[in-house]
Amino acid sequence: MSRSSEKLGQSSASLGEIPTESNLDPVPMHDVQIEPNWWWKYRQILREPAAEFAGTMLLVIFGTGVNCQAGLSTNTGVASSPKGDWGSVCLGWGAAIALGAWVSGGVSGGHINPAITLAFATWRGFPWKKVPVYIISQLLGGIVGAGIVYSNYFHAIDIVEGGRGVRTLLTAGNFGTIPLDYMTNVSCFFSEFLGTAILVLVLLAVLDSRNGAPPSGLVPLVLFVTFLGITASLGMETSFAINPARDLGPRLLTSMVGYGKAVYTFRHHYWIWCPIMAPILGAQVAAMFYDVFIYQGHESIVNRRGKIGRRLADMV
Amino acid sequence: MSRSSEKLGQSSASLGEIPTESNLDPVPMHDVQIEPNWWWKYRQILREPAAEFAGTMLLVIFGTGVNCQAGLSTNTGVASSPKGDWGSVCLGWGAAIALGAWVSGGVSGGHINPAITLAFATWRGFPWKKVPVYIISQLLGGIVGAGIVYSNYFHAIDIVEGGRGVRTLLTAGNFGTIPLDYMTNVSCFFSEFLGTAILVLVLLAVLDSRNGAPPSGLVPLVLFVTFLGITASLGMETSFAINPARDLGPRLLTSMVGYGKAVYTFRHHYWIWCPIMAPILGAQVAAMFYDVFIYQGHESIVNRRGKIGRRLADMV
Amino acid sequence: MSRSSEKLGQSSASLGEIPTESNLDPVPMHDVQIEPNWWWKYRQILREPAAEFAGTMLLVIFGTGVNCQAGLSTNTGVASSPKGDWGSVCLGWGAAIALGAWVSGGVSGGHINPAITLAFATWRGFPWKKVPVYIISQLLGGIVGAGIVYSNYFHAIDIVEGGRGVRTLLTAGNFGTIPLDYMTNVSCFFSEFLGTAILVLVLLAVLDSRNGAPPSGLVPLVLFVTFLGITASLGMETSFAINPARDLGPRLLTSMVGYGKAVYTFRHHYWIWCPIMAPILGAQVAAMFYDVFIYQGHESIVNRRGKIGRRLADMV
Amino acid sequence: MSRSSEKLGQSSASLGEIPTESNLDPVPMHDVQIEPNWWWKYRQILREPAAEFAGTMLLVIFGTGVNCQAGLSTNTGVASSPKGDWGSVCLGWGAAIALGAWVSGGVSGGHINPAITLAFATWRGFPWKKVPVYIISQLLGGIVGAGIVYSNYFHAIDIVEGGRGVRTLLTAGNFGTIPLDYMTNVSCFFSEFLGTAILVLVLLAVLDSRNGAPPSGLVPLVLFVTFLGITASLGMETSFAINPARDLGPRLLTSMVGYGKAVYTFRHHYWIWCPIMAPILGAQVAAMFYDVFIYQGHESIVNRRGKIGRRLADMV
Repeated sequence: MSRSSEKLGQSSASLGEIPTESNLDPVPMHDVQIEPNWWWKYRQILREPAAEFAGTMLLVIFGTGVNCQAGLSTNTGVASSPKGDWGSVCLGWGAAIALGAWVSGGVSGGHINPAITLAFATWRGFPWKKVPVYIISQLLGGIVGAGIVYSNYFHAIDIVEGGRGVRTLLTAGNFGTIPLDYMTNVSCFFSEFLGTAILVLVLLAVLDSRNGAPPSGLVPLVLFVTFLGITASLGMETSFAINPARDLGPRLLTSMVGYGKAVYTFRHHYWIWCPIMAPILGAQVAAMFYDVFIYQGHESIVNRRGKIGRRLADMV
Repeated sequence: MSRSSEKLGQSSASLGEIPTESNLDPVPMHDVQIEPNWWWKYRQILREPAAEFAGTMLLVIFGTGVNCQAGLSTNTGVASSPKGDWGSVCLGWGAAIALGAWVSGGVSGGHINPAITLAFATWRGFPWKKVPVYIISQLLGGIVGAGIVYSNYFHAIDIVEGGRGVRTLLTAGNFGTIPLDYMTNVSCFFSEFLGTAILVLVLLAVLDSRNGAPPSGLVPLVLFVTFLGITASLGMETSFAINPARDLGPRLLTSMVGYGKAVYTFRHHYWIWCPIMAPILGAQVAAMFYDVFIYQGHESIVNRRGKIGRRLADMV
Repeated sequence: MSRSSEKLGQSSASLGEIPTESNLDPVPMHDVQIEPNWWWKYRQILREPAAEFAGTMLLVIFGTGVNCQAGLSTNTGVASSPKGDWGSVCLGWGAAIALGAWVSGGVSGGHINPAITLAFATWRGFPWKKVPVYIISQLLGGIVGAGIVYSNYFHAIDIVEGGRGVRTLLTAGNFGTIPLDYMTNVSCFFSEFLGTAILVLVLLAVLDSRNGAPPSGLVPLVLFVTFLGITASLGMETSFAINPARDLGPRLLTSMVGYGKAVYTFRHHYWIWCPIMAPILGAQVAAMFYDVFIYQGHESIVNRRGKIGRRLADMV
Repeated sequence: MSRSSEKLGQSSASLGEIPTESNLDPVPMHDVQIEPNWWWKYRQILREPAAEFAGTMLLVIFGTGVNCQAGLSTNTGVASSPKGDWGSVCLGWGAAIALGAWVSGGVSGGHINPAITLAFATWRGFPWKKVPVYIISQLLGGIVGAGIVYSNYFHAIDIVEGGRGVRTLLTAGNFGTIPLDYMTNVSCFFSEFLGTAILVLVLLAVLDSRNGAPPSGLVPLVLFVTFLGITASLGMETSFAINPARDLGPRLLTSMVGYGKAVYTFRHHYWIWCPIMAPILGAQVAAMFYDVFIYQGHESIVNRRGKIGRRLADMV
């Protein structure tokens, strides 16, 4: 996510805004590179979707991977001793988001989360025309990542489920999230809303050169710490989707490989409201809070100069 | 907390001190930005309190959150297997302080702790007139953060307490700290004093450009490591308040939502002496040690030039 | 690994490519240093192999070391309480690769993995003539590292094996990897392929100045996070060799110190296919994916200008 | 430890060596600061010893602190559930060395270890005349740090020992190291030698601007990772002293507060050979390896130009 602030900054350059420091960013120089061969121009189109795809894929591989390893290995048929504890679950999820962001940060902005893409489009001038491609890439990354993890762990899943090809909600929760029994849907919505709001609040602060921004290229380290905390402190109740693509992608995969409709129908279609709607709303509210009370950058819609001053970048 | 050293540095500029390196800090440039709309000037007033509020809120959300998740999930009615171990408690508290500092560091200095605000005011020329607003913001952040965590975990608290709305000291300790039974109050005072003194000693060293200062924006990473250590090494006996707002805020919240007066009256009003007074005193002593023996910056009161030289900044 | 991108960049300088930012890299200046004594010129030859040797040695010391400590200490004859849990296994492996890379990164590029050396030679113009020396150095590092760990833990191995000098596959798996019983060889191949592909994908992204590259000297921190995740999320099934030298070196050592042929012959010579071939192939595929879809640097073979434009550097 | 390389570099400036990059280091500028009051000149003398004292004190507080918390809390009289696991022990020791180095790195070079001070004096021109003051400061820091931890945990020690003031080797091992029963002294020596050699090898590599050096101020982060690994991978057998001051300081403290002579006399005065001599020797050998095979800096004795060229700095 390390370059998204500069990208957003560029779109307001025509307003004569005082530029933020350049962070020695070589992007403009790279943009004028000559094309060495016929493939180059295709890659220029494919780079951003490929980065979002790869980033979300990594997020889901490490995230659902640690769910599977820690969850399945408590069965003594799977492993002689548990290959996970809650500490390793924290580390796995921390690595998941950090590596997803490192793989894509400088190319696509490293959203790897539809809720974040939508919040940036709403509040910070990220181009709406890119939103569909981003979200489709993220969702595909989620499906493929979950498929890779499923391929990696299906032997162990067979053992835990008690037979080859038996698939129930017992192991489905390692992919698409399933909340604890006693949680009401309202409480689940609150929990998902909260986690995403915190993620976006932190992200906006560390992308803000007027706040606690770390050196370029180290924003994923902050996300690592953020997910250590979310997993340790707010992860128990809903298994923290916090990201529609991270939840829907694996859920689609499970429905395709034999888990059936059960992954959608439980709890009155839980999957729509809590892991999809709550993160999107949480991201919006957190971005609003940050921009209204703290953010001074002119690319925020809170900092526009009234009707006439609406920046030209919006019309592009 | 990444900018506080520069802010303090500015106040001594009129003394003709040789300036420290600028760290490419864009703050002065930002300060002259033009106002795009009517809201801008209100935000200029609200930014620092909002940042302290948000930072302390995050600290308390992650901190009391991991207390709740790890503590409550040992009950098999809450979760089929524990969703925390001491390793995850360390990670949760480390994330708590790091994310609190990242969210507020560049705006307010990222104190998120009344003991630190008071130590900076006493020893380093932080303006006393800002102290009340900072402390109130921190305390509000502590209350709101604890309220959010309580809202998130009240179902699980009901299960552990054995009934809807039953609230006892059994779960209160996940919010305001309660020490181990056999600890004397003197020992608790010592433990809280010690933890805060270490925190302030480390903080002053990494904010000191003549000592081990990391790149701007990475001071919260040091705090992450610091709280990993405090939780792992010094956390058992008192549950490490180390911060009056982190303790009093959640304690006020618990007294409001049904825990009653018990959270104040146990151990002869423990809450005043150990989680409030000891951190304030520990921060003062650590700052004195660092400034007397190591610090060379002229904003320290130890480095003033006698009566006449008292800097003008104090009079502002 | 922090300097490898610049080294590769130098080889294309004659093509008039627009240079990437210099990262304040002092390498060229150092290259003209005067020789102070007769030994200097020998060291110039030995530096790169020595760095690869030391880096791989450290990787294997920490990696097989944590396997031994966590695995052996579950025996109450070895330690009164376990001196490891899966969280510490993650931390040990994360430290292993990070410290291996920090020790060698600026000297040899910090490959410490034949699969990575081969991928860089294939896709990024790393000189093929250096490949044999690199791989031999890595393999020697693996043998020596495993020998050091064996020397350190042979008392405990005696206790677990039930007698002095008794050596079986029971403890061999702490050195050369042995997969879980129920895993098919195809699944093991997939798992090793996957882990290495992820490692290389992340590595290429963080060495790419147009993507999420952290400051020079902090790439090993990304590898730390990567191995936290691989250990936590994908480590259970094959014990994640991911590196032919990390697996074959320790395996050779075990065959020499008394474990005999069993470390080779189990599962139809598993050791060749899964820990050696799969990582090499995984690294190639990941590099191809990254260069085809994302990478814009001209040192990639995907970005050459057709037959005539093949760069001179290849002929050197 | 972040500045030690520059300090050493200065001593060879008179030889006309090509200087390494300055890392934007403001030290020289600070050295000419004017004295604001009478205390300033005393602090100039006290700064380095105070930094070594404070750094070693922090190392011992966090290190022996996590030993005490994790070890004592397995007793159900001390805490209702364990307040530590091996993951938290790793984190506590990682924090210990990192915070010790952050507190002292820019002032004294952050040795906080007599073995490192001696290795720098032998191989890199650290002034021998400073060595005694450094080692005394480190030892005092070790004693005071252990005293603080003892004061913090004596209630819990009483419970574990079974009576007020009862002190045996049962809890002494939380302060001065005691190896596992079955380990021979030769194996213990090897283990301590190995750990220190690895620490010094890593340290010299990350202080070497021609190798994997991270940004100034982040060397302690590498030490954090190093001790995560040493604790996880090589910590079981001897409890890893790796540092004469970290072991002898706490051992002296225990002998003073009631543990008696037993902390010295067990195993034929183990305390001299393994925790003191082995680290000193290990540091020397690692420094020799690094300087002979990899290091190119002219301050190393391996890189001097014969008798006549011996640098003047040595005579100062």
